[in-house]
Amino acid sequence: MIFRQLFDRETSTFTYLVAGGADGGAALVDPVREQVERDLQLVRELGLRLTHVFETHVHADHVTGAGELRARTGAKTYGARSGGPACADEGLVDGDVVAVGNVRFRVLATPGHTSSCLSYLLAPCDPPRVLSGDALLVRGCGRTDFQGGDAATLFDSVRSKLFSLPDATLVYPAHDYRGMSLSTVGEEKAHNPRLRASMTKEAFVAIMGALDLPPPAKIAEAVPANLACGERPQ
Amino acid sequence: MIFRQLFDRETSTFTYLVAGGADGGAALVDPVREQVERDLQLVRELGLRLTHVFETHVHADHVTGAGELRARTGAKTYGARSGGPACADEGLVDGDVVAVGNVRFRVLATPGHTSSCLSYLLAPCDPPRVLSGDALLVRGCGRTDFQGGDAATLFDSVRSKLFSLPDATLVYPAHDYRGMSLSTVGEEKAHNPRLRASMTKEAFVAIMGALDLPPPAKIAEAVPANLACGERPQ
Repeated sequence: MIFRQLFDRETSTFTYLVAGGADGGAALVDPVREQVERDLQLVRELGLRLTHVFETHVHADHVTGAGELRARTGAKTYGARSGGPACADEGLVDGDVVAVGNVRFRVLATPGHTSSCLSYLLAPCDPPRVLSGDALLVRGCGRTDFQGGDAATLFDSVRSKLFSLPDATLVYPAHDYRGMSLSTVGEEKAHNPRLRASMTKEAFVAIMGALDLPPPAKIAEAVPANLACGERPQ
Repeated sequence: MIFRQLFDRETSTFTYLVAGGADGGAALVDPVREQVERDLQLVRELGLRLTHVFETHVHADHVTGAGELRARTGAKTYGARSGGPACADEGLVDGDVVAVGNVRFRVLATPGHTSSCLSYLLAPCDPPRVLSGDALLVRGCGRTDFQGGDAATLFDSVRSKLFSLPDATLVYPAHDYRGMSLSTVGEEKAHNPRLRASMTKEAFVAIMGALDLPPPAKIAEAVPANLACGERPQ
């Protein structure tokens, strides 16, 4: 399997390139519009062709490159069927499996940061790998105060869908702000200050309710743009 | 093996945490002084104890955390014997092997960015992994216009010591400025714009000679500090 973590410094967003198999098909997960040239160059240099673009959710902090990538490569775009990017070619629900070459993307519904966040469990991988979007970050999690976000829902998503994976599972988040690149389920169960095993749902809801964060700088632009795959709304 | 890539955003520096084996010993490679707390917290949370700090070279763009890490943990510090950090507990030369738990760090002398740059080939890894310092970056390389830097020497280092490794070898650089995290020897042989297989030494020397870069912002502070492992010179 080819697996690459890419970073957009302005928005601290991770994009992932995943490929495997003889046909050269490749997927990008959570591409950033300003990084489309970089990402396509890497796809070309690796001898791949882009066939799939996955979104973990409708982002509020950056504009997706999905639409431009689709237009330039013919790749199909994927996101949550309900509440996800309306522009996506295929809507996904919990339990769906999408094959990219010989890599399988298993969809885990992990709402709470937004009402329709997805995570993607990759197989075959040893140890397992999960792309956790904003549901679970390294020692953190996405905020829950807009786009249908709900702290109690996020708590249930992380505990039931992510912390139920083997402890050795590598967790690849959609963002990091401190220079961390990944974590494991076991580490987050032990050390996540909001979500570790000793935290109750009530304590988590109280923490999230007290964050009092300013709105993301790009939310007014990003959400409508991302519902249209980063292309200008018609 | 535990292997973590950590990033310092201000200086675009990668630090690596490497560990393996039952004794819990761990190494940091190219730590940044401002990130010592983050790095030590990760070491603790992973149940490790820091035993080794390696430098790939005497950095001009950031101050190392090696001295503070040594003072706080008792870890030994390592760098090039000749021209490396004078403060290091052990000086390394090409071909040396240092064991960190059951991970072996094989020293490759890769001068050219500075006169005493080292790379570290990790084993056992499949595919192999090399920490290439500033000798080889993703689609680039370190500059060669100070600290004994020499373009012809760097060309020879990359071609003889790094491009002689298997094409599948994962290349983990000391910096990236575009959001790339790693590469492979095969990719760099094919696509590095300065060092790919079709480039001659003369062409490379001409490219490096024409860069006309300003001095690194921190060079006046960083080089003397790093010769003292990031502790203030006596």
